[in-house]
Amino acid sequence: MRADFAQWAAAHQSGFEEVLRGVLPQPEIAPQRLHQAMRYAVLDGGKRVRPLLAFAAGELTGADVARVSIVAAAVELVHAYSLVHDDMPCMDDDVLRRGKPTCHVQYDEATALLTGDSLQTLAFQLVAEHPLCDEPLQQLEMIKLLAVATGSRGMAGGQAIDLASVGKSLSLPELENMHIHKTGALIRAAVLLGAQCGSVSPAQLACLDHFGKCVGLAFQVVDDVLDAEADTATLGKTAGKDADNDKPTYVTLLGIPAARDMARNLHQEAMGTLTEFGEAAQRLRELADFIVLRKF
Amino acid sequence: MRADFAQWAAAHQSGFEEVLRGVLPQPEIAPQRLHQAMRYAVLDGGKRVRPLLAFAAGELTGADVARVSIVAAAVELVHAYSLVHDDMPCMDDDVLRRGKPTCHVQYDEATALLTGDSLQTLAFQLVAEHPLCDEPLQQLEMIKLLAVATGSRGMAGGQAIDLASVGKSLSLPELENMHIHKTGALIRAAVLLGAQCGSVSPAQLACLDHFGKCVGLAFQVVDDVLDAEADTATLGKTAGKDADNDKPTYVTLLGIPAARDMARNLHQEAMGTLTEFGEAAQRLRELADFIVLRKF
Repeated sequence: MRADFAQWAAAHQSGFEEVLRGVLPQPEIAPQRLHQAMRYAVLDGGKRVRPLLAFAAGELTGADVARVSIVAAAVELVHAYSLVHDDMPCMDDDVLRRGKPTCHVQYDEATALLTGDSLQTLAFQLVAEHPLCDEPLQQLEMIKLLAVATGSRGMAGGQAIDLASVGKSLSLPELENMHIHKTGALIRAAVLLGAQCGSVSPAQLACLDHFGKCVGLAFQVVDDVLDAEADTATLGKTAGKDADNDKPTYVTLLGIPAARDMARNLHQEAMGTLTEFGEAAQRLRELADFIVLRKF
Repeated sequence: MRADFAQWAAAHQSGFEEVLRGVLPQPEIAPQRLHQAMRYAVLDGGKRVRPLLAFAAGELTGADVARVSIVAAAVELVHAYSLVHDDMPCMDDDVLRRGKPTCHVQYDEATALLTGDSLQTLAFQLVAEHPLCDEPLQQLEMIKLLAVATGSRGMAGGQAIDLASVGKSLSLPELENMHIHKTGALIRAAVLLGAQCGSVSPAQLACLDHFGKCVGLAFQVVDDVLDAEADTATLGKTAGKDADNDKPTYVTLLGIPAARDMARNLHQEAMGTLTEFGEAAQRLRELADFIVLRKF
């Protein structure tokens, strides 16, 4: 990792944390317990990979950082909502997330349910109430893009496919289809929304969409490898959970060496989509490196 | 009830059901189980009070019915999402809704969780992808209005206050504060969004906002009276549930006669807000009658 990339990422992570602190309801505002739980579920946690992708894509298209901060926050709130609900007893029943007790453990199940619900709503409030681009009609398109990536034909749909796959043997295309929805949709949305805060052509957007797809899938493959290899302390969440739950993963399907190869191939494919952008896409390249090579 | 109001309501209810069938994901599209559960939770049920309020407010402001249908659908999807989540074991743990098994009973808890999540997302997708008014900037305001009414300082916040109130003795203002959020926020949103699809002045919007507030509160008071009086078959959901759950209601706080008086007073106050609209507000008046007088 180049030193200036580490600085860039740290500066954006730190600035973004302030943005999140500002857009989340303050903890002393009623209903306090819900607002505290929302902040608990979002703040001080995670690598903020999706926001960093949005910032890098926004830099590529000359976008205003304040505008990109809002789409990055919206995407991260959707991600956080999905984690809170995914960790609940009726889903993955997990007790540890980002090194802390999960929301329903720290608070209670009913509060966790409302916390996830309210984080999703806040995401859409943010993208409606702040200017994201110069054309309101384009902003409506951006809100639609976020909704499609989030809903039953995006992230939530991927979770439904995941539920249906427990105990089944999926083919590689079926596993890919699940992840393209479950994690890929929101990662693509982060890249595209960040870019759309600036000036970008449809052809460029198509390249960035392909980039997001490759990186999103690589992200999941790497996660599966890490989940199979790492211990709980390093991961910040319960390790080996997927295999225990009899969920198909790239590791159970391919084994660790072939899963690593797949991640490397996706990384190369992602790099190929950025050729036409030249030096301007350097941050996106560095992020792809970061996502795929982080622990290998 | 005037015959032509009954016809008007029946025609809108029937046409609206077709709108919902069209905007919900088709049951054969993957992930099928999730899409089927979304349709199960929304279709063939309920009086569609919020959509009728939107249609009546839209008629008052000369709005295009197709546009009002979209905001009515969005509001109804938010309402349906809240019912699905509210019925889950970690919340009210109810098994019967609109005369049918609740979503988590008919499917499973994980599917119900994703169903509520996806219905909320679809609501925001609808208001972003369809034109609701002539000015995109105003449409962004409308999306924000829906989000604020839905989120932690609206409906979901009211549910959080409700959770915190179990086993406590609330004062009348505290109970009112809970309901203004829990049911009132979305009912007000239905009226305001329906009106904003047409041409409406800020002063008129303020009157309609007050109308929505009174009707929303009256709706809850009547619900409490019905819950205390009716049997399960008539109500289509488990009767006497609130008292069983040791939840404060207008009936436990005031008794049935005073609760009825309160509903009648709110009805009068609602009527007063419509004076300046004259005959054009007839449907809204009839709806207020319908909501408050339905079972008395």
